[in-house]
Amino acid sequence: MRIARFSIDGNVAFGAVEGDKPDELVLDIIKGIPFADFELSGTKVPVSKVRLLPPVLPNKVIAFGRNYAEHAKELGNEVPDAPFAFFKPSTSVIGPGDAIQYPSFSEELHHEAELAVVIGRMCREVPRERANDVILGYTAANDVTARDVQKREKQWARAKGFDTSCPLGPWVETDLDLKAASDLTVQCTVNGAQRQLGRTSDMITPIADLIANISEAMTLLPGDVILTGTPEGVGPLNVGDEVAVTIEGIGTLTNKVVKRG
Amino acid sequence: MRIARFSIDGNVAFGAVEGDKPDELVLDIIKGIPFADFELSGTKVPVSKVRLLPPVLPNKVIAFGRNYAEHAKELGNEVPDAPFAFFKPSTSVIGPGDAIQYPSFSEELHHEAELAVVIGRMCREVPRERANDVILGYTAANDVTARDVQKREKQWARAKGFDTSCPLGPWVETDLDLKAASDLTVQCTVNGAQRQLGRTSDMITPIADLIANISEAMTLLPGDVILTGTPEGVGPLNVGDEVAVTIEGIGTLTNKVVKRG
Repeated sequence: MRIARFSIDGNVAFGAVEGDKPDELVLDIIKGIPFADFELSGTKVPVSKVRLLPPVLPNKVIAFGRNYAEHAKELGNEVPDAPFAFFKPSTSVIGPGDAIQYPSFSEELHHEAELAVVIGRMCREVPRERANDVILGYTAANDVTARDVQKREKQWARAKGFDTSCPLGPWVETDLDLKAASDLTVQCTVNGAQRQLGRTSDMITPIADLIANISEAMTLLPGDVILTGTPEGVGPLNVGDEVAVTIEGIGTLTNKVVKRG
Repeated sequence: MRIARFSIDGNVAFGAVEGDKPDELVLDIIKGIPFADFELSGTKVPVSKVRLLPPVLPNKVIAFGRNYAEHAKELGNEVPDAPFAFFKPSTSVIGPGDAIQYPSFSEELHHEAELAVVIGRMCREVPRERANDVILGYTAANDVTARDVQKREKQWARAKGFDTSCPLGPWVETDLDLKAASDLTVQCTVNGAQRQLGRTSDMITPIADLIANISEAMTLLPGDVILTGTPEGVGPLNVGDEVAVTIEGIGTLTNKVVKRG
């Protein structure tokens, strides 16, 4: 099931996405929330009539760095011995179609297309064998990065945590299991031209081990999001660009870059 | 005014702390929340009868690294040219008297006593001259750090973001202005023996500039917390230790270290 979060006439709800043709998608409104037992209401609304929101409101977004070897190398970095993580704050999250605001303190904004894992339930110290049990589903993410600031500042709160730096969406696909999610193409285009093309099978540390690694340290909450790293091909975003992240089997997350007003 | 957050008989409320003697403190229960206009109810309860909670529930905790020169040097690090920040997640926050759980993946836990700034209202791009306007008050913090993990992992999500790594409290002192907050002693004791003693006047980047720096990048929300760096004297914590952070004019935040169960 593809679960979207949306607003219509000032109300916010979750809905199950039905249909295959992009222009003909319909939402079956969900009674309740997707983190517990829920029912479809049978009340349907066309996706074209709503505003899609970030599919979850994460308490925290945990992002793993340099989890694809070719990406680490393209920036002149060593491939790390072990995974390492940083946070993107909830204030950085935007949804499909929302604008990425070019920050005033950077002159080198980069896209980073990533598979995002959405946590389904509260958990801690999850062994890799149980990782699949704590996952609600998967969505697409863009770990938008102020590359110049990242190079200057030892920790990345500003470089990767500024407002609008975490587009998520367009919805959460719940029908993928860990095995399927571990062999998907991850693609990024800018104004229709391909920039990144990788496969989640090329992750250095696989998804189950990322969940074990971070949950060894901290409690994960329903709606928390884990970004799993970006494949090679990262590059600049400029004001006016349209950037699209497509994950095979999930969908496409598209955002425009605007001047911060 | 000293504003505490507490629970009694399963209910959570804010209260204004009255009295001077530690054993005779009383809470005047607040009607409403301290981030908007509020009134004191006149209903009073002794602090000894309640459980003090973290004084705020931050959406994000932003922590600045190496903001005291002598501390940067004691760990063999360079004094940074410009401030840099990292996040501690909301799941790391505990209150006064709560246990710091020694993480399973570290063998070198350190205390870091810090002055914490509590943000009072939603804001972005705050000029240094306006910083005082967005501050609700100040509290004490312990930026508990798995030093061995911090050395191994390039970004510090696990080293400084594990559960219980962010004790805050005992309350928010709202009667200090920026000038007063910029010249306070920061002290840390372990089992009564002094480990850290510094002054907030020794910060490399002053509080107003820290707020300008981070709010240039991201929206701050009411209850967000900014940790302002730790003075020299950081050192080990062991299971069984009692660690106390005292900030002049605010109060003392005490926590015990326990084995993670």
